[in-house]
Amino acid sequence: MNNQWWQKPELGLDEHGLFFDGIRPDELAAQAGIPLYLYSRKRIQENIERLTKALKKRTLDFRLFYAMKANRFEKVLDLIKHTDLCGIDACSPGEVKLALACGFKEQDISYTGTSLSDADLRFLSGKPDIYVNCDSLSMMRRFAAIGGPRSIGIRINPDIGLGYQQNKLLRYSGGNTTKFGIYYDRIEEARDLAENHGLKISGIHFHCGCGYLNGDLDNMESILQGLLSFINMFPDVDHLNIGGGLGVPLSQNDKPLDLEAWSSLMEKHLQRREVNLWVEPGDYIVKDAGILIVQINTVEQRQDTLFVGVNAGFNIHIEPAFYNLPLHVVPCRPRPGSKQRVTIAGNINEALDVFGRNILLSPVKEGDYLALLNAGGYGSSMSSNHCCRGSFLEKMVP
Amino acid sequence: MNNQWWQKPELGLDEHGLFFDGIRPDELAAQAGIPLYLYSRKRIQENIERLTKALKKRTLDFRLFYAMKANRFEKVLDLIKHTDLCGIDACSPGEVKLALACGFKEQDISYTGTSLSDADLRFLSGKPDIYVNCDSLSMMRRFAAIGGPRSIGIRINPDIGLGYQQNKLLRYSGGNTTKFGIYYDRIEEARDLAENHGLKISGIHFHCGCGYLNGDLDNMESILQGLLSFINMFPDVDHLNIGGGLGVPLSQNDKPLDLEAWSSLMEKHLQRREVNLWVEPGDYIVKDAGILIVQINTVEQRQDTLFVGVNAGFNIHIEPAFYNLPLHVVPCRPRPGSKQRVTIAGNINEALDVFGRNILLSPVKEGDYLALLNAGGYGSSMSSNHCCRGSFLEKMVP
Repeated sequence: MNNQWWQKPELGLDEHGLFFDGIRPDELAAQAGIPLYLYSRKRIQENIERLTKALKKRTLDFRLFYAMKANRFEKVLDLIKHTDLCGIDACSPGEVKLALACGFKEQDISYTGTSLSDADLRFLSGKPDIYVNCDSLSMMRRFAAIGGPRSIGIRINPDIGLGYQQNKLLRYSGGNTTKFGIYYDRIEEARDLAENHGLKISGIHFHCGCGYLNGDLDNMESILQGLLSFINMFPDVDHLNIGGGLGVPLSQNDKPLDLEAWSSLMEKHLQRREVNLWVEPGDYIVKDAGILIVQINTVEQRQDTLFVGVNAGFNIHIEPAFYNLPLHVVPCRPRPGSKQRVTIAGNINEALDVFGRNILLSPVKEGDYLALLNAGGYGSSMSSNHCCRGSFLEKMVP
Repeated sequence: MNNQWWQKPELGLDEHGLFFDGIRPDELAAQAGIPLYLYSRKRIQENIERLTKALKKRTLDFRLFYAMKANRFEKVLDLIKHTDLCGIDACSPGEVKLALACGFKEQDISYTGTSLSDADLRFLSGKPDIYVNCDSLSMMRRFAAIGGPRSIGIRINPDIGLGYQQNKLLRYSGGNTTKFGIYYDRIEEARDLAENHGLKISGIHFHCGCGYLNGDLDNMESILQGLLSFINMFPDVDHLNIGGGLGVPLSQNDKPLDLEAWSSLMEKHLQRREVNLWVEPGDYIVKDAGILIVQINTVEQRQDTLFVGVNAGFNIHIEPAFYNLPLHVVPCRPRPGSKQRVTIAGNINEALDVFGRNILLSPVKEGDYLALLNAGGYGSSMSSNHCCRGSFLEKMVP
């Protein structure tokens, strides 16, 4: 029982079943009576501390900004605030307001958005200590007109992608032209625009994809080299913001991101440029710290497929259905017997509402509880009330 | 200006720009300040009446049940109730409660869900006049155990798909085994289970896909023939529920569904079996009666692509991004000049957040308003607050 690839100190199987940071997930889920997201306080702390430690070893000044869009459950935000190791990466006025309400200061917030309206820009111009990255020439021009002189970052699209690139839905950079940032061919124009409008470019931002692991570090190096070759154009730049996208293992074949290699890469390229490093991890901090507990209500053979129906739909955890990422599922009380391939189906009347196909699962019965792993990021934050099936609970443990 | 394929009495362009059921959409949107869904009272009524009229011509008893999951905006539900031509197709206890709150009676409600929990079944067993379709043997067995004897329908999966079949995300039947219904190979088992548990099977339900148009009617006929060849197994069956899925034109090449041909097909096959027809249109009633008005905030050339950024994200209108259906976009005040291909991008920090690529649009400027057509179904009902960007308004006009 001790050799599960996904096992962590906070999450594993013992002789009684699945444990999670001191509790039995199915016992809490039975009390809840509806789908239940559980987050491990320890794991969130560890994830932040591991990243901090790896970066502290380097001769490099750095700042972390948690990407709130991954999970804005208040206790998650409170915990992150409490660590005092991490600011907030916000992408909307609403997220800024929530961060401020949770005790973060303006200077703890880095804002990187897209398609900002004039109303958004007016909001930001009233918050002078928030650091704002502009992702288009349009935004620079309008922000200067609305808010006047200011120190800003610009988001550059280096046109090389990282991470889940096989997945067209998650391409942020590389391949076809994406909606993000300023491409190299307009950088000079951006510099001139800034000069003419009283904007001081003090940061360069880029984000090349989600979920990158060790195999992507070579590509990351090319991107860093490319970006840094442009940095002399901007004498006021004091930091490089490499966005988020640090991945966590989603299947048995994934190895955890080697933070030594990753941070050493950053040091190698940033140190001699004398710029600081900013990082915006979202998923890396919360994804493997969260599980979604659902109850099986239907076990039904349909033709060649064994369907396991559960009391939750893709509307409360859209990532597995939407982005085709690998999903690992563990029964909370595994039953003896050989594993079988099943399709896990939700309770929404849509063909799309399938959590996973060909999932290898030990025998299950109606009434059993399942844990969907790696549900801490982009789960509850994207939930909807489609089909009036939007009810779930979230709880920080212990 | 009078030859737009999408033009209707309620929606079109005149010398002043876009009109919609007596109002100017951009004027209301400017007041709203946030994305605005508009629904045409007249168009919803017409859609219901057209369907009713086509069926009334046939020697066929029929009932209509509006699929609430398409749009549960209260004024839409009130209007449908007011027509007195349509009941409700519900798929969750929450939808049932909302239907009852809007004045529909239990006997006006047909319930067809999937992965129902015991709690859902207890809820339904307390509502004896709601007609319930069982979509699995598991559900039949548990419903009988919880609720006792009852007249029910069974959902059959005929294993032939209709409609948007090129779109794997919307396959309800046909192709790989789907999560819906009871396949033919277990029908006898279902009949025996019903007999042994006091369930009287009085209806057969099937649903083969979304968005079917005239080209699908031959396939529909095969399905009807297949289903009806089984109907003698169930002497108590008094109606066939053909689900929803009646499509509306989404692009210039689509012709409206020929309701004469469609209703005549139903009459031909159902009349001699002496069973009534039940239909569950959702999209057909609301989709082309709704538009989403967004404001352009960013016009930006990125490499080879002109991006038009708007004040809404895929989280408030997920269908174009999610299901890859054709999207037609019309500026509310078209400017003179030749049309160009643009990519319409939302304000969510995700690569996926693109409403449409290669959209042919007359010249636009920042500040202009766009109408996204056919947004009345599966728009607001699936919305989320992802990135705290969930704000929008809905309004019935006039």
